Amino acid sequence: MHQLREPYLLTPGPLTTSLATKSAMLRDWGSWDSDFNQLTAAICRRLLTVAHAEASHVCVPLQGSGTYAVEAALATLLPRDGKALVLMNGAYGQRMARILEYLGRNFMPLDMGDYLPPLPDQVEAMLDADPGITHVAVVHCETSSGILNPLEAIAEITQRQGRRLLVDAMSAFGALPIDARELPFDGLVASANKCFEGVPGFGFALLRRDALEQCQGNSHSLSLDLYDQWTAMERSGQWRFTPPTHVVAAFASALEQHEAEGGVAGRLARYARNKEVLVEGMRAMGFHTLLADRWLSPIIVTFHAPGHLHFDFNLFYRLIKQRGFIIYPGKLTEVDSFRIGCIGQLFEEQMRGVLTAIRAVLDEMGIPDGSPR
Amino acid sequence: MHQLREPYLLTPGPLTTSLATKSAMLRDWGSWDSDFNQLTAAICRRLLTVAHAEASHVCVPLQGSGTYAVEAALATLLPRDGKALVLMNGAYGQRMARILEYLGRNFMPLDMGDYLPPLPDQVEAMLDADPGITHVAVVHCETSSGILNPLEAIAEITQRQGRRLLVDAMSAFGALPIDARELPFDGLVASANKCFEGVPGFGFALLRRDALEQCQGNSHSLSLDLYDQWTAMERSGQWRFTPPTHVVAAFASALEQHEAEGGVAGRLARYARNKEVLVEGMRAMGFHTLLADRWLSPIIVTFHAPGHLHFDFNLFYRLIKQRGFIIYPGKLTEVDSFRIGCIGQLFEEQMRGVLTAIRAVLDEMGIPDGSPR
Repeated sequence: MHQLREPYLLTPGPLTTSLATKSAMLRDWGSWDSDFNQLTAAICRRLLTVAHAEASHVCVPLQGSGTYAVEAALATLLPRDGKALVLMNGAYGQRMARILEYLGRNFMPLDMGDYLPPLPDQVEAMLDADPGITHVAVVHCETSSGILNPLEAIAEITQRQGRRLLVDAMSAFGALPIDARELPFDGLVASANKCFEGVPGFGFALLRRDALEQCQGNSHSLSLDLYDQWTAMERSGQWRFTPPTHVVAAFASALEQHEAEGGVAGRLARYARNKEVLVEGMRAMGFHTLLADRWLSPIIVTFHAPGHLHFDFNLFYRLIKQRGFIIYPGKLTEVDSFRIGCIGQLFEEQMRGVLTAIRAVLDEMGIPDGSPR
Repeated sequence: MHQLREPYLLTPGPLTTSLATKSAMLRDWGSWDSDFNQLTAAICRRLLTVAHAEASHVCVPLQGSGTYAVEAALATLLPRDGKALVLMNGAYGQRMARILEYLGRNFMPLDMGDYLPPLPDQVEAMLDADPGITHVAVVHCETSSGILNPLEAIAEITQRQGRRLLVDAMSAFGALPIDARELPFDGLVASANKCFEGVPGFGFALLRRDALEQCQGNSHSLSLDLYDQWTAMERSGQWRFTPPTHVVAAFASALEQHEAEGGVAGRLARYARNKEVLVEGMRAMGFHTLLADRWLSPIIVTFHAPGHLHFDFNLFYRLIKQRGFIIYPGKLTEVDSFRIGCIGQLFEEQMRGVLTAIRAVLDEMGIPDGSPR
């Protein structure tokens, strides 16, 4: 089949972005120049506003992928003699633990396996049992399964226990409401190419100012030292090392579009509708979601692979791609699954489009419906 | 003065890039998809070819700025109980030392100050005196001053002494010849946005395969572990964490243009001509280069600031920018200076253009000529 346009990306990022966002990259910026510094400052101000964190936090952008920003936030916020409780239910929680192993920092995992949420009572019991735990690290939306973790309850317990919270909000911030006036966190990390619909190349952390001020010397790495990045930026307005100027300019445009869509509320409404159309349509074809409705996120949805003998994910993927949609493989250890994202420049039309493509591909593969084994 | 077009960047990067390079960013790529993996693989193959390193080395790209790639190469190649001799004559050599301090790895500096080259005899004496030194780290072109360091002589001594060489070739690779068959190095680091004229967002390291195979567990950082990045990429063809897809696509286009221009030789010829026009024109206006001709690089040239009472760099910069050219401030500790770059999509026409602008700005500032104090 001839492909008429570049495929839509129904993935957790990089995403399909708008032409306006991409077109903002058609210019070269001097990274030392004041025009570019103003772009950076405007982005940081806007991100703080989105999280209602202007009064309490600072925004520190960091070159690299989102994982770099997570590593940098853990390394900068956690004192060398600190100890983290890492809540894990998928690849991104596990990655935080792996980072802490590299750093040689003390941590304790609460591993819920592939897709169960960490229960607030369990978290409380572990904090009760170990006063040495200084920080709790949690993933807001764990895209391995698509689960939306109970962030508010965990934040409340963490604060009540006098510990500090670090949130990996990579795939959620920009579409799920975060209000720093009510949600007590020391650090929240996300990246350009998720719900703000920028292109990939940098991440950022919102860091509680009075916590960050205590963090000099914590980081294991010059490149990933958010304290050093922050103080240098405060002094000069510049990134310490060459920023991805084009990606930054694209992000500034993406933020304007985010605001024009109604900010977090507008974006959430569109993604929620995408998810609704997707889940309803997939269930109508016999597919089953991995998670019960209450844990489903409007970010990405995991489906059980069809149990039919003829099902082969690589072929399924390729045939859907030929029809103009890129879906995402599963990332679970014990269940055969695949994922479909709801974020990016996708609307009801594209969600109906991928459903039509999946129906046609099932027919082509001789698979009557998507019911799992 | 009204600005008619976006300014040319006469800086050490980010650079003025071609429209073809920027236009390659007008597409979204799935980072998990095989189309994108092929792009990455083609880039790595080409970079190895440029350095004649296909038989001996592997290419490992890394998200982030060039400094990330330098930190990653130091952390990955240098064993935890290794010791580096760091040759310093400017900010980038100093930065390697600062990185090693963060890492807590043993090193010895040879600090030549702001702009003197490290002398091969000194290097040899230091290696003779300390058999514990396992690695020598050197900057090929130190853009603080623009000096071209004597890489071949240092490489030869390092090999003769049985030590291993790590080269920060950030601002040189792509325009200055590197032949891995003759220049013995374990690691050579550069980035997308220098002489290959890509846009910023990732760096890469050419690493001797049999050295890298011994490097598991050396890195202090998950994000910056080149061994882990390499083995994961060998297995899956994918970057471990989200790559800057648009920047990578732009780089693939930039590499094609590099090849079409005649590769390293073609690019060097253009940059050398740029430098010639620049230096001749500046000297004709009374400006003095910091370095003697034999140490001048075709990458960036440092000039003494004019000694005239009316000279003010910020005003000078602003007035030149109004005429469509962005120059670069100095980075020396003891001498008042500024820099003008010769790299990027710049040709004789632009170099003559910046000379005309500088002449007009000197007149406007009431400064008769550029002679230093």
